Amino acid sequence: MKKVLIYDTTLRDGTQCEGVSLSVAAKLRLAEKMDSFGFDFIEGGWPGSNPRDMAFFEQVKQLNLKHAKITAFGSTRRANTKVEEDNQVALLLASEAPYITIFGKTWLLHVEEVIKTTAEENLNMIEETVAHLVANGRKVIYDAEHFFDGYKDNPEYALKTLDAAKRGGAEFVCLCDTNGGTMTDEFGEIVAKVVAHMGDTPVGVHCHNDCGLGIAVSLEGVRNGATMVQGTINGIGERNGNANLCAIIPNLILKMKRQLNCESQLSKLRDLSLFFDEMANLRSNTRLPYVGASSFAHKGGVHADAANKVKRSYEHIDPALVGNRTRVLVSDMSGRASVMMKARDMGVDIDSKDPLIGEFLDELKNLEFRGYEYEAADASFSLLLSKFLKKHSDHFKVRGYRVIVERDEMGRTTKSEATVKLEIDGTIEHTVAEAHGPVAALDLALRKALSKKYPQIKDVDLSDFKVRIIDSAEGANAVTRVQIESKDNRNKVWGTVGASDNIIVASWEALKDAVEYKLSEDE
Amino acid sequence: MKKVLIYDTTLRDGTQCEGVSLSVAAKLRLAEKMDSFGFDFIEGGWPGSNPRDMAFFEQVKQLNLKHAKITAFGSTRRANTKVEEDNQVALLLASEAPYITIFGKTWLLHVEEVIKTTAEENLNMIEETVAHLVANGRKVIYDAEHFFDGYKDNPEYALKTLDAAKRGGAEFVCLCDTNGGTMTDEFGEIVAKVVAHMGDTPVGVHCHNDCGLGIAVSLEGVRNGATMVQGTINGIGERNGNANLCAIIPNLILKMKRQLNCESQLSKLRDLSLFFDEMANLRSNTRLPYVGASSFAHKGGVHADAANKVKRSYEHIDPALVGNRTRVLVSDMSGRASVMMKARDMGVDIDSKDPLIGEFLDELKNLEFRGYEYEAADASFSLLLSKFLKKHSDHFKVRGYRVIVERDEMGRTTKSEATVKLEIDGTIEHTVAEAHGPVAALDLALRKALSKKYPQIKDVDLSDFKVRIIDSAEGANAVTRVQIESKDNRNKVWGTVGASDNIIVASWEALKDAVEYKLSEDE
Repeated sequence: MKKVLIYDTTLRDGTQCEGVSLSVAAKLRLAEKMDSFGFDFIEGGWPGSNPRDMAFFEQVKQLNLKHAKITAFGSTRRANTKVEEDNQVALLLASEAPYITIFGKTWLLHVEEVIKTTAEENLNMIEETVAHLVANGRKVIYDAEHFFDGYKDNPEYALKTLDAAKRGGAEFVCLCDTNGGTMTDEFGEIVAKVVAHMGDTPVGVHCHNDCGLGIAVSLEGVRNGATMVQGTINGIGERNGNANLCAIIPNLILKMKRQLNCESQLSKLRDLSLFFDEMANLRSNTRLPYVGASSFAHKGGVHADAANKVKRSYEHIDPALVGNRTRVLVSDMSGRASVMMKARDMGVDIDSKDPLIGEFLDELKNLEFRGYEYEAADASFSLLLSKFLKKHSDHFKVRGYRVIVERDEMGRTTKSEATVKLEIDGTIEHTVAEAHGPVAALDLALRKALSKKYPQIKDVDLSDFKVRIIDSAEGANAVTRVQIESKDNRNKVWGTVGASDNIIVASWEALKDAVEYKLSEDE
Repeated sequence: MKKVLIYDTTLRDGTQCEGVSLSVAAKLRLAEKMDSFGFDFIEGGWPGSNPRDMAFFEQVKQLNLKHAKITAFGSTRRANTKVEEDNQVALLLASEAPYITIFGKTWLLHVEEVIKTTAEENLNMIEETVAHLVANGRKVIYDAEHFFDGYKDNPEYALKTLDAAKRGGAEFVCLCDTNGGTMTDEFGEIVAKVVAHMGDTPVGVHCHNDCGLGIAVSLEGVRNGATMVQGTINGIGERNGNANLCAIIPNLILKMKRQLNCESQLSKLRDLSLFFDEMANLRSNTRLPYVGASSFAHKGGVHADAANKVKRSYEHIDPALVGNRTRVLVSDMSGRASVMMKARDMGVDIDSKDPLIGEFLDELKNLEFRGYEYEAADASFSLLLSKFLKKHSDHFKVRGYRVIVERDEMGRTTKSEATVKLEIDGTIEHTVAEAHGPVAALDLALRKALSKKYPQIKDVDLSDFKVRIIDSAEGANAVTRVQIESKDNRNKVWGTVGASDNIIVASWEALKDAVEYKLSEDE
């Protein structure tokens, strides 16, 4: 069976996503990363659409890419013009990309109502544009826009548009489900017919996720003879996203046993996914198939008890194959075995028969009942366990704290003032700080109190702050859970938790754990 | 063709999701919502697993559900015991749920290594448990765990487990892809074989999203003869989630033209999705197929130019069919119409050509940008619009307020004291109150200040309090949105909202709107 080629459009179609925008520098770093991962094609942008895309093509030539082909995206020439005089086509050539992907119309509705020309002229536009680019030394991929809608409307005409691209000299034709509305079964049938029709011209698919089927239809395309899949990292893209390459690739390799050029890099898949989030400054979606942090996360203790062979049977693949790992979640359904696993994860050495473990579990259940949750608060869990095992003593004692929030509605000013009193090595540190909000004020006063003795505390940043009402039935007195994520200057990240029916107290607990964890880790 | 039945497991399997936990009150409200939407089965929980689930079954009997059947989830009896003596089975009966869903082992690996019994005894466990429940007047759905892995390992034995359930009297057998690892094509083939084998016993499917195919395999199951689909709202569930009913349902109705009992409620699908997020206190995923805010969001202006027929061709369905709407991202043109609708809803009489509406829309966009959200805060929206139209004047003026939260760590006591200064008809009311938490203290002081002039304020209860961090990137100074639900002694419920980078200020705004709304409604 033929190799399946991976065509990435993260840098072009992916940036159509609401809230995503990539700098030229980020696009270049992503191109290098995708090249080293083994992607076959990297679509860099649309040179005719904005100056940023042109800058990318200018600079990408300086990169020393090992495998991937850079492609520039654009449209066929306009109706009733000469292709040599079409400015947008000229910019495609000016990009100097070795491959050019042009899209054209398949659906007669769009030919007549959007570009307002004839069926015949549309065919000329496709053939002439492809031929012109080929004559200028480029290889061409032809993207058939709205292919499936067009085919269902008029299959003969849809195939004629592909024939025009083939006559022009296109190396690939790619069938786009532009609206993402096609079901798996009809998608497969249509691809099979096109593959049979096209003979030796290879066929690709370009899918969207509007029905939640972006991955499924892409795979169905391959099953029916497509040998190129277009998609994006993490399925980023406009509306509900493009087809997610980070799920399509492992499905093709591990489940469908197809050959891909990126096969040997599969264990770097999670890394690739996280790298994109970092470049795009997005919070990682923990629930992404294969690569998400939750993909192999288990509640409950059965896994820890079971023999290795059975353990494996609870996961559809070995997580290491895609660079991921099993996580045992500490939750109220878990037992001794998962606490033991977590302790080993943390490098804490305990005997599984130690009666302290039983007591610890009781304490844990009690805390979870009161609103604490340790799934995202590894640092608080670790402190709790260490204290329980008497392997930890605090770096400071809290004597007390106070926050005043004052609102002058006439002056329209708000002020929060916090005081903190700590005891550090027998010395009292009593500090005060001011901020707009009460938690920020407490945070500042706490660091101020610690920084004389522990100057490294200045390197800790509070990077995320989450508040949740646990049981809201009792109104304003309900229990509040606060989760804090902190980061130090070496980019180490840790999570802490606090819970109380007083939101200030809950926030304080999470803040206190965050700095205590930093101090104990530094030792 | 047979109707497809929808079986919801949000309240059971959905709560296995990392970071999701539902109170009994929230589960009951969700059950009512799902019933009115037209779901056929609602799996309420596992009575044997925790006291919270048992409380749900106790209280759900008080609800007046119109259509949905409540089902209790549990396991077959343990090996080598009598079913009558099995405590977990007894708890299933004690739940008094009319339907009981029990799961049993399909995969011999698990029979031998996990429950450590024989192939034969496993069949007995299935048949006897089903028969016992049926003999006690319950209808039984049999969930075949790890069915696809088991079938691939040993198809004869896998079918025997289903036969055992059928002999016991199960009304449905449901094939679970527990690990979520099965590809669409093999999934369909196996379902077709099982459907042929089972004769008149209907077959269901229960899928997970580990390969990104949860929706696709569920639909493939239906294509191959399954007549029940198990899934969750928004695809919530452990690891990568369960099959997403909010995409499966519109795909079945709109694309595959199947009949469902919830067909007539389809336009409430987005509402159902958002309601779940509210109940679970989750941030809505804007990229969910069909129901997400980005599903029909378009960059660029082509739609505005195009004729209606072509405009429609850019979207795979009419968004209104699922209660969603087109959003044009640069210049949102649909705002005016929805504000007019809302105003009419509130009984506010305005001319749609009134230039004030344009100004109001600008103000609304500004407020939403700053973190306010009015979907669950009708009372705040109504006050805002009335003030804008000069149809409202406040019952009191706020001069200022202050909260002090003080924690004495040695005495282990926390105290919040709030002072409030109002001006009512030219008179200053300056009050103070104390509570454990700062919001409760503010709430008490505010009522104290109002109650002399407006004694009816004593009848207002704060029935729900939600806090959400909108943009957590800036740590403790991030914008916080507070939503409050209030109730009076006539059981009228209203929602208000506040937003600020100071959580106390955000809470105050929502509290103030809550009482102001009550006073203005009473007139």
